[in-house]
Amino acid sequence: MPPALIGLDADDTLWHNESVFRMTEARFAALLGDHAAPEAVSARLLETERRNLALYGYGVKGFTLSMIETAHEIAEGDCPPEITRAILAFGREMLAHPVEPFEGVAGTLEILARRAPLVLVTKGDLFDQERKLAQSGLGELFSAVEIVSEKTPETYARLFARHGEGPERAVMVGDSLRSDVLPALDAGAWAVHVPYEIVWAHEAADPPEAHPRFRRLDALSGLPALLDELETP
Amino acid sequence: MPPALIGLDADDTLWHNESVFRMTEARFAALLGDHAAPEAVSARLLETERRNLALYGYGVKGFTLSMIETAHEIAEGDCPPEITRAILAFGREMLAHPVEPFEGVAGTLEILARRAPLVLVTKGDLFDQERKLAQSGLGELFSAVEIVSEKTPETYARLFARHGEGPERAVMVGDSLRSDVLPALDAGAWAVHVPYEIVWAHEAADPPEAHPRFRRLDALSGLPALLDELETP
Repeated sequence: MPPALIGLDADDTLWHNESVFRMTEARFAALLGDHAAPEAVSARLLETERRNLALYGYGVKGFTLSMIETAHEIAEGDCPPEITRAILAFGREMLAHPVEPFEGVAGTLEILARRAPLVLVTKGDLFDQERKLAQSGLGELFSAVEIVSEKTPETYARLFARHGEGPERAVMVGDSLRSDVLPALDAGAWAVHVPYEIVWAHEAADPPEAHPRFRRLDALSGLPALLDELETP
Repeated sequence: MPPALIGLDADDTLWHNESVFRMTEARFAALLGDHAAPEAVSARLLETERRNLALYGYGVKGFTLSMIETAHEIAEGDCPPEITRAILAFGREMLAHPVEPFEGVAGTLEILARRAPLVLVTKGDLFDQERKLAQSGLGELFSAVEIVSEKTPETYARLFARHGEGPERAVMVGDSLRSDVLPALDAGAWAVHVPYEIVWAHEAADPPEAHPRFRRLDALSGLPALLDELETP
């Protein structure tokens, strides 16, 4: 039988997200152009983000705080107030950034929703993720929306049991090997990787090519045809 | 019949929270002592927080960003970098602040959990709320934990249907008239107000004294005895 439940990631699976972060990072590097080279700024920022992850979690607000912290480190105690104010503005612009689903996503989700209930499984900032989903216009197509702080095998086991018939009868679809694919496979579900053009260094991982429940698609539009191949008990 | 489901707020109902914000606000006002009087600093901060609420939502990270923004406003374009760095440290300290349940809370929850399933309903930052619940040691006593971006009548109707027999057969308990009591009453549930010593200006509201499904308790320890009075269909 094909899967009884379809889990879908949101950021960079249904709409652009990483590109908004990377665009902001480029503006941030330009802002600090008098103090360091762009690559050095990016490396310091990633370091700060990783150090703060256990305190801030994922999302724009933590990213903004990490940019401010990095700027003050790079400017060695002499960060001009204009830079801090500019970073605050970057954060606000990210949070107000319009969300547009990738072309064809709404139509694909409509087809999928006739096959099995759809559950959105996304991590990050609760408030901002709800805002993006509302703005995307896709909310009605999902039977449930789950915003979680981290995507672990336990997360998928719990959510796929809550909304379906357990992980064995579910498929998870997303752009992140580390968050969408590997933990869903560990939980016992199928996992379909739909790569995005950019991968945040923190989310990078090796694809589990040999895994029998792993598939890759170039675009989400291939998922309806693939569903029949995903045999579940 | 007494309620079939007990909803409980977390911050300032199970453990201190507002006091951590107010303590930080006092440190923030002291930090800006050369620029403005403490009352003026607090007033400007509340203004910034309210303006940013639609973008940031609730929680420590948004509060930290609002403090940085307020400091730069008050210092009129000349905010020393030490102040920004100090505020970043305040935010990190808040996020690492140890959580201790109020005295007797664990015992009361154990008694309550034998009467009806307990659902934690809290708003704020997903990541930080999960951290606090884990640290409190109370997690096991709850049948479900729901972290939401805003507490509306629809929120309570949906959650009390998901975890119980609908709002009519549920009671919501918390310290905030605006978030815990009024919307729960609107949804059709009982609501029990357990006031906390401090109320954030944004959460203040008039108590619905005349409402037949409204009760007030001095402490959570009074809830087991009160339950039998809360007649539900």
